[in-house]
Amino acid sequence: MTEPLRVALAGLGTVGAGVIRLIDANADLIARRAGRPIEIVAVSARDRSKDRGVDITRFDWIDDMTQLAHHPDAEVVVELIGGSDGPALALARATLAAGKGLVTANKAMIAHHGLELAEMAEKTDTPMKFEAAVAGGVPVIKGLREGAAANVIDRVYGILNGTCNFILSKMEAEGRDFDDVLAEAQAMGYAEADPGFDIDGVDAAHKLSILASLAFGTQPAFGDVAVGGIRDVVAADIAEAAALGYRVRLLGIADLNGEGLFQRVHPHLVPFANPLAHVTGATNAVVAEGNFVGRLLFQGAGAGDGPTASAVVADLIDIARTEFGPPYAMPSASLAAEPAAPTGDRRSRAYLRFTVPDKVGVLAEIAAAMRDAGVSIESLIQRGAMADGSVLLVIVTHEGPERCVAQALEKLRGSQSLSGEPMWMHILGE
Amino acid sequence: MTEPLRVALAGLGTVGAGVIRLIDANADLIARRAGRPIEIVAVSARDRSKDRGVDITRFDWIDDMTQLAHHPDAEVVVELIGGSDGPALALARATLAAGKGLVTANKAMIAHHGLELAEMAEKTDTPMKFEAAVAGGVPVIKGLREGAAANVIDRVYGILNGTCNFILSKMEAEGRDFDDVLAEAQAMGYAEADPGFDIDGVDAAHKLSILASLAFGTQPAFGDVAVGGIRDVVAADIAEAAALGYRVRLLGIADLNGEGLFQRVHPHLVPFANPLAHVTGATNAVVAEGNFVGRLLFQGAGAGDGPTASAVVADLIDIARTEFGPPYAMPSASLAAEPAAPTGDRRSRAYLRFTVPDKVGVLAEIAAAMRDAGVSIESLIQRGAMADGSVLLVIVTHEGPERCVAQALEKLRGSQSLSGEPMWMHILGE
Repeated sequence: MTEPLRVALAGLGTVGAGVIRLIDANADLIARRAGRPIEIVAVSARDRSKDRGVDITRFDWIDDMTQLAHHPDAEVVVELIGGSDGPALALARATLAAGKGLVTANKAMIAHHGLELAEMAEKTDTPMKFEAAVAGGVPVIKGLREGAAANVIDRVYGILNGTCNFILSKMEAEGRDFDDVLAEAQAMGYAEADPGFDIDGVDAAHKLSILASLAFGTQPAFGDVAVGGIRDVVAADIAEAAALGYRVRLLGIADLNGEGLFQRVHPHLVPFANPLAHVTGATNAVVAEGNFVGRLLFQGAGAGDGPTASAVVADLIDIARTEFGPPYAMPSASLAAEPAAPTGDRRSRAYLRFTVPDKVGVLAEIAAAMRDAGVSIESLIQRGAMADGSVLLVIVTHEGPERCVAQALEKLRGSQSLSGEPMWMHILGE
Repeated sequence: MTEPLRVALAGLGTVGAGVIRLIDANADLIARRAGRPIEIVAVSARDRSKDRGVDITRFDWIDDMTQLAHHPDAEVVVELIGGSDGPALALARATLAAGKGLVTANKAMIAHHGLELAEMAEKTDTPMKFEAAVAGGVPVIKGLREGAAANVIDRVYGILNGTCNFILSKMEAEGRDFDDVLAEAQAMGYAEADPGFDIDGVDAAHKLSILASLAFGTQPAFGDVAVGGIRDVVAADIAEAAALGYRVRLLGIADLNGEGLFQRVHPHLVPFANPLAHVTGATNAVVAEGNFVGRLLFQGAGAGDGPTASAVVADLIDIARTEFGPPYAMPSASLAAEPAAPTGDRRSRAYLRFTVPDKVGVLAEIAAAMRDAGVSIESLIQRGAMADGSVLLVIVTHEGPERCVAQALEKLRGSQSLSGEPMWMHILGE
């Protein structure tokens, strides 16, 4: 057997401990598959004494995380600290500057600084891999970078945040409202105490920007993702969508069209015929549509110590096999800089839900606003008085430019005919 | 730009023409992703003059396919001739003997001769890749070989034959019987004039044996796959399964247990909660269950010129990047030889359908046979007289050893209480 691949590990939270457990449990198989053993030689974390359920006394302990980059035995540093900047970024830079390989699960850091880090890695032909940064254990970065590499990708989209999908599918199964289910998800550990990154779509946007870059050969552009979350989805939206043949899912969607790079995270209505409609619980799933392969689906656990560790160690195995290339599948200098595509001309069908007072003239005002903005109504459902006396009005539009829907909603802003903010969800097209 | 990867192509059927079209259409993108262009230099097929919708006059035409292995400009030969032996195998051997890379979509050849070919390839560290041999465009070989490489795989299973899934999901959607739908599938080009390889499960068995080897690190053992097809599935089976919460799918399933390697292709009842229950049409889908990653799903088009060409060219891109390793993910000398696992002790739930004459004592005889063999009945449905006066009796058993079900059916063989062969399908467990 040849020399082991020696690894330094920064960050010993659940994922870090999972990586240690995985390498212990599957050591023989990994050595057979990788052609050589993978061996952790040094670790670093904030608290040395914390019980993590794994024995770390056999590894070098390094107090200053950044110093892992200079550990004499380590060829590769695994960064599991988290956070887009701070110690994680300092370590990533130091590692690549030292000409050592970098493996990270840090979606925020890659979304913000991936291009800079890739340029550093390419200069010295050093591996930099981040499979665990998107969709946890699901090998979707490999799927785009390699499996679908022969294709022009027309569109990439998916369920990228397990917390949101857990909440939406629980709302759907039990007919409960958002706040109620969020509280339960927090109690069960499926949602953070401060859940904003997840439920407001930021985490999914991090991942989407990474996928888009790989799919289209464009520079990562996290700042251009239009981001929306699921706080405003109510149980009635899910029930109405189901009656119309749809499930509500928080999707990240990207395509590269003549006007630029379109990237959006937003709750969508997904038709039952699309495989994403059947993805429930904390699962992640990504669809890539290629000009020769058609529709590919990758699905699995999007978070958790086991799945994330699986992706981290898959990256290490690639490195042990010297099967790695430029981080974004092509030299970063050849990634195209694309402007954010404007959405006004984008044609789609819209789901609109209005909460309105139960009085004369409301429907007329809303219908007039639609007509004046050129929005064509496909179906309309009005549900009798809710508990608070208000009425629910749901409109599904024919396909048309998004600008028109935006104009109609603008016209209705502040109207006495609305007793709350309208909800606008896009309907996923074929 | 560095030197192109130069390729010789044998076989110019729909897939061969698709590979030419793909390389033409996506040339620039492929060169960016692969780091160098991919260029076809020579082709060979049976008929030079046939119109294939692509211009082949720009390539060297070689009459004798085997001679492609010795083309002075080609580094890699793509074999798309088909057939487990004959010219395909002769070309594959000649190619590897000449130290040139081999890419093939030939599942039959890999199932029968993959190990021998892999040994040849490894001797000279030459690439040998066959992504297109399993599940068409879906990168599931890469998924197992690399994406899930950190995991002990507990079980791999999937919908591996698009023709069967097309027929079963059409029977399901339209309530029609097998012969009727098969005839339509043949007229539409979804099934061959001689459909045996597909509908009797042989094609799925080829693919399953390849997946099992990659998943478990075992020697490919196509001869040990227990093979059954879908000829005996009737519309009533699909309706009864649906009433019980299942869909009928032809699955290939493999696991490695204490007694050896289990490999079986057979129609199964798949619970609605499993993602495979929602795979309709000619789609393929593979589930791999790993000890850290959990359940991974790969899904997409399992056949057709575009998807298959996508997988062939993905292999070429890997070779252009020099990102390849041993064909079975580990040196073939380290693949374990495992006996076929006996199935008698295997515990599962069974779906049994009997067609019986409408007369006194039939139920008693069947129930007695079940009791005597130790089969515990979970539910039983008897449907009144069918068109021919016979009665349908459906039994779902509790989980128990398969041996007991086999004994009960053996005891009933030739009984006057049965008016046709009983149907036994396995129920996919969690």
